[in-house]
Amino acid sequence: MQTSDLYHHFLAQLQPLLNNQQRRFSVALSGGVDSVVLLHLMTTVRKQYPELEIEAVYVNHGLSQHAGEWQRFCQSLCEELDVAFKAVHVEIVKRSRTSLEAQAREARYQALDENCLAGSVLLLGQHLNDQLETFLLRLKRGSGLQGLASMQQLRLLASERVCFRPLINITREQIEQFADEFAITHITDDSNSDERFDRNFLRHQVMPLLTMRFQGFEKSAARSIRLLQKQQSLLDEYTQSDLEQCQNLRGGLSCESVAKFSEARQANLVRAWLNQFTHQLPSENQLRQIIEQGLTAKADAQLKISLQSGDVRRHQQHWYFVKEQAIPEAMEIALQSIELTDGRKLTVKLGKGIRKPKPNEQVRVEFNKPQAQIKPLHKPGSNTLKHWFKDAKVAPWLRAQVPLIYYNDELVQVVGYFVSAQHSADDGIFWEIDV
Amino acid sequence: MQTSDLYHHFLAQLQPLLNNQQRRFSVALSGGVDSVVLLHLMTTVRKQYPELEIEAVYVNHGLSQHAGEWQRFCQSLCEELDVAFKAVHVEIVKRSRTSLEAQAREARYQALDENCLAGSVLLLGQHLNDQLETFLLRLKRGSGLQGLASMQQLRLLASERVCFRPLINITREQIEQFADEFAITHITDDSNSDERFDRNFLRHQVMPLLTMRFQGFEKSAARSIRLLQKQQSLLDEYTQSDLEQCQNLRGGLSCESVAKFSEARQANLVRAWLNQFTHQLPSENQLRQIIEQGLTAKADAQLKISLQSGDVRRHQQHWYFVKEQAIPEAMEIALQSIELTDGRKLTVKLGKGIRKPKPNEQVRVEFNKPQAQIKPLHKPGSNTLKHWFKDAKVAPWLRAQVPLIYYNDELVQVVGYFVSAQHSADDGIFWEIDV
Repeated sequence: MQTSDLYHHFLAQLQPLLNNQQRRFSVALSGGVDSVVLLHLMTTVRKQYPELEIEAVYVNHGLSQHAGEWQRFCQSLCEELDVAFKAVHVEIVKRSRTSLEAQAREARYQALDENCLAGSVLLLGQHLNDQLETFLLRLKRGSGLQGLASMQQLRLLASERVCFRPLINITREQIEQFADEFAITHITDDSNSDERFDRNFLRHQVMPLLTMRFQGFEKSAARSIRLLQKQQSLLDEYTQSDLEQCQNLRGGLSCESVAKFSEARQANLVRAWLNQFTHQLPSENQLRQIIEQGLTAKADAQLKISLQSGDVRRHQQHWYFVKEQAIPEAMEIALQSIELTDGRKLTVKLGKGIRKPKPNEQVRVEFNKPQAQIKPLHKPGSNTLKHWFKDAKVAPWLRAQVPLIYYNDELVQVVGYFVSAQHSADDGIFWEIDV
Repeated sequence: MQTSDLYHHFLAQLQPLLNNQQRRFSVALSGGVDSVVLLHLMTTVRKQYPELEIEAVYVNHGLSQHAGEWQRFCQSLCEELDVAFKAVHVEIVKRSRTSLEAQAREARYQALDENCLAGSVLLLGQHLNDQLETFLLRLKRGSGLQGLASMQQLRLLASERVCFRPLINITREQIEQFADEFAITHITDDSNSDERFDRNFLRHQVMPLLTMRFQGFEKSAARSIRLLQKQQSLLDEYTQSDLEQCQNLRGGLSCESVAKFSEARQANLVRAWLNQFTHQLPSENQLRQIIEQGLTAKADAQLKISLQSGDVRRHQQHWYFVKEQAIPEAMEIALQSIELTDGRKLTVKLGKGIRKPKPNEQVRVEFNKPQAQIKPLHKPGSNTLKHWFKDAKVAPWLRAQVPLIYYNDELVQVVGYFVSAQHSADDGIFWEIDV
């Protein structure tokens, strides 16, 4: 095995990780030929690097009647190869708007990530033909650059764990030949979920036509995909740099900066900006609308473009993405931390703020009182909260959620913004929202 | 015809051009169903816009034995439809490193461009299936984003003429149905050049499989391609902006600016920079080498990276692309313009420069004399040309081509740089290179 071409290629792929002192690897093991060959290759690498720590993780979605049988196969294979084994059960609850396959995939990655050894690199068995099938399936769906760029060889999971596909440039045929040559036993997946059907169709009907007609088709197409990946990541880099340049610390996007760009660059930037707050992205037409209205609305207050999961609003020449937020309920409070009805935590601290309440003063937190009067410390007179919020350039949609502390009928603190001048005390207390 | 869906779609595609007062159109007519339908559609548009001026251009590559017959078919079709007709003969001389198809295509565009009416928009008959075939052929070749983005609906030819494909979102089937419905006669191309073979294979073997299995495959894939086009043009925009930011007026690329970018952005920028000077672009590895050496070479003079059509050199912390240039031959000259042996024109003008030669002084132009002595006007003393070039920060590779004007054995002018102090005259003459 150690002298085979496939092993040499495999080791070369892994080398940067090994050189980087990575010693812990988790193999996603399904029992199919790809992941079984992957596990054999890893145990062969361990002969050269005896300090390697290898585990295999089997994910049981309960989608196949054979799941239990396959799990036993994987377990005994691991015993034979002297590899730690874990099986994880995953329940898939069907949600609207996402396919069963997409959910199974997502649940699988999450389960793998949660169950792998700390600090291990997760190894997946996907190969070049999987990659080409993914590419064609995404073409069928009308995906753009990001979708057609298909599967990265290396990516970071949400937990920052490295997820690596050492076989991504190896064809299915090479893997199957390797399994034959070294008499590696594995199971054959009869799974028939929709995407599998489509993949099997591409695998058995389309790809043979192309590879027989065009010599080296698989390798060429794989090269195309790698180039798309590079170009996608370059585009991501440019986009990120636009975003950094145009976004303020509160996530607001500067209209002035956006206006300077070409239409295509505006659309790209606004999409990337929204993507930070919601995954329900607007269509191309909606995007165009947002930009046109967003740049031309005469007064900030006039702009409100509703998307599925929130609104685009404008304030002080910046766009903000604002989600619907309930106004919390008013409540009596004591001098201790308390959870508001919207889940935020209101805490009280000692320090420069307001005097403590007197025994006859009831303490309450109220919300959304634009007409309440207050003379803030260091401000020239008494006026309405609406006036002071405007004075402090607080975006209108943020105001109703600001906790207002009352001692009986007197507004004494506008949390995060002002304290009442006549209640102020250097050696007093103040309320805060925990973030 | 005017009530058909295809006509409505066609007119909608053309509308932006018509709204822009475009009235002159040239149809590239081959006699095949696509371009014949295109011509019929255009003459139908002319019923609504009688001021339209339409011509058809037939390109005869001489590649098919039927070329003459097809030309006659096209000509009589044009007479029937009352459209001006032109036939253009194109000779293709096989060059190395480019395929016959690529050359035929290039020659065809050039011939069309040269033979269309001034100010006309060139209309081409390519449709959605041509587009998908192009996409798959480029995938087969391992192309990246630019290649897979396939054919743009609108592009500018070298002459700035607009080239437009109004049928690019229409399937071949729709076009053929339209021809059937309106009993439009056309010829069937039996051309069997290699690319045609591959296209026919994709058309007859691969596409039917995909479209039968996946409903709407053609439209989805076309959407993918349009997204790739958008993303390519966005990337071009970012690249252009990097280039403008990092390039000086003499085409030099600032090392300092390049060094600040990520590796991917460096490679992209350097490729775009080189692309201005040569179409023989370096491989990814060569590119990496250029950047690494280019950024780390200790002294400017040390850097010389040879590519196929020139060298990358460094001077004053900028990279330059330098083509091999012959040193022109020395020659006797009179007080009149003269062509140097490298094709540049040396002219003599009246004005602030040097005194005219005396009757006994022979005037010569010489080249490449680094040891020649001169005391330039306003410089402190006499020294070698090498010294003065260095002093003036003239890049080493530019020096040998600078014309040196001699009166007998005295160097009197270094064209474009210095005049000899002792020969200077406010009311004299000076030599110049015409650009």
